[in-house]
Amino acid sequence: MNLDEMLVILKDIYENRMPFNRLLDIRIERLTAAEVVVRIDMREALVGNFIRNILHGGVISAVLDLTGGIIASVELLKQLEGKDEEETARRMARIGTIDLRIDYLRAGKGEYFLASGSILRQGNKVAVIRTQLMNERQTLIAAGTGTYLVG
Amino acid sequence: MNLDEMLVILKDIYENRMPFNRLLDIRIERLTAAEVVVRIDMREALVGNFIRNILHGGVISAVLDLTGGIIASVELLKQLEGKDEEETARRMARIGTIDLRIDYLRAGKGEYFLASGSILRQGNKVAVIRTQLMNERQTLIAAGTGTYLVG
Amino acid sequence: MNLDEMLVILKDIYENRMPFNRLLDIRIERLTAAEVVVRIDMREALVGNFIRNILHGGVISAVLDLTGGIIASVELLKQLEGKDEEETARRMARIGTIDLRIDYLRAGKGEYFLASGSILRQGNKVAVIRTQLMNERQTLIAAGTGTYLVG
Amino acid sequence: MNLDEMLVILKDIYENRMPFNRLLDIRIERLTAAEVVVRIDMREALVGNFIRNILHGGVISAVLDLTGGIIASVELLKQLEGKDEEETARRMARIGTIDLRIDYLRAGKGEYFLASGSILRQGNKVAVIRTQLMNERQTLIAAGTGTYLVG
Repeated sequence: MNLDEMLVILKDIYENRMPFNRLLDIRIERLTAAEVVVRIDMREALVGNFIRNILHGGVISAVLDLTGGIIASVELLKQLEGKDEEETARRMARIGTIDLRIDYLRAGKGEYFLASGSILRQGNKVAVIRTQLMNERQTLIAAGTGTYLVG
Repeated sequence: MNLDEMLVILKDIYENRMPFNRLLDIRIERLTAAEVVVRIDMREALVGNFIRNILHGGVISAVLDLTGGIIASVELLKQLEGKDEEETARRMARIGTIDLRIDYLRAGKGEYFLASGSILRQGNKVAVIRTQLMNERQTLIAAGTGTYLVG
Repeated sequence: MNLDEMLVILKDIYENRMPFNRLLDIRIERLTAAEVVVRIDMREALVGNFIRNILHGGVISAVLDLTGGIIASVELLKQLEGKDEEETARRMARIGTIDLRIDYLRAGKGEYFLASGSILRQGNKVAVIRTQLMNERQTLIAAGTGTYLVG
Repeated sequence: MNLDEMLVILKDIYENRMPFNRLLDIRIERLTAAEVVVRIDMREALVGNFIRNILHGGVISAVLDLTGGIIASVELLKQLEGKDEEETARRMARIGTIDLRIDYLRAGKGEYFLASGSILRQGNKVAVIRTQLMNERQTLIAAGTGTYLVG
């Protein structure tokens, strides 16, 4: 399998095989070697504050945690390209969030939200990823920094 | 209204009037002036990793964020006791999470999970709350530290 | 006093009137309405690991905390421009770090280090600032996210 | 070498061989298999805010970072007891702070300050440690949570 084929599988796992991502209806809008964009559409069940009709903080942290994890996974897949599939699967299975900081910057108002991020450092054992969530008008809603186990 | 009556209303709001808490079926097991315990039962829709059958990190951060917010709210209600209801409602409506750190310590395995916490500092403007999530066998699954706007 | 005059005073306070900044010999390389750059030169007393000859983590967190605080102060001064000096002084005196996350990304090797940052959000009460520390070869050594009280 | 002998060496390294710890005059008050207490005495050079005469935030984060690192080191030494000295040295040399959150809870007023902490989780690769700083009257000044690389 080459990288592009593995990214197709990765997208399928994150969207369709993780029950909580399905419950939230999180979509992976773009998943390439160069860019990851995660999308979630506003709907009544995701509301925290029913008076102000804004996204629940738990939805925001779930989306940013996931976005950072995908970015770390894509980077690891790039590093492992050419290695045998068993080792790749073993390394990928070990990926997990060690810790995460979320800054809730503005009320989560919007029709839909897009999350993206960038790698601060990807080492042999640990990756550090910065992420952000914006609504459809490019308003910055929240920012995250997560440390992920990758080895 | 006295404090106990306000706590009954607070419990109802958190359990029944915040849609995302209902989607996750988060229950407030205890909500008194002295203690807050939040409960969530494992079920298929809350799973992150379908191979290992463990709680999704987003569920964990949602529960810990909520637990810290309730603890900050109870403390604020205690401070506001005796003040008129309009000011109390105005102050309570302003409570929100500024930032949150979650440490994912062990795989979220269990039948149900209980979250509790304690106040590090509650000032006029900002409260800092430490929280933790354990499963039914008292295994520490995750720990949180959150900063909440309270004034 | 206009903004530029206030910035000259601010620079003097941070460099010369805060004893710990003098002990570390932290310099404010640029302090304008548009840009803040903080500099610290490597020297033996700032070393943490004597075998690897790298900057102590405490120096890194001190520099990034300071950089975020200066950025929040400059932003507040811009917002207060035209207000009377007493109110400005009162607001400025209240600025303080609420919490700070530091990610130590790479060993602090270098001859000198520059810290800069950007505002994620500056509200009436709280500012959130992202910062970074690089060495003279533009290697990213550490990143920070801090929440500051500004009102 | 047994554990007690190794702890004596560890104490000497932290107190006397790390230049920045000497600059701050950080003392390890207790360093046993069961307890770690770090002490720093107030003095003019450690002041941040010269008007209010309080400890600089950078001193606080340096002390809490160090305290967490010592706790992780002691735990690792306990796990490695009986292993050969070369492997122990190699593992110990790799210990480092990955990330750190500091909550600045109250103004750092006092004659001296004591830092201590506890382990949330020590795995094969990563340890998570909670720490706190109090003054001589047991006032809680700051709290920390740090993730340390241990393998």
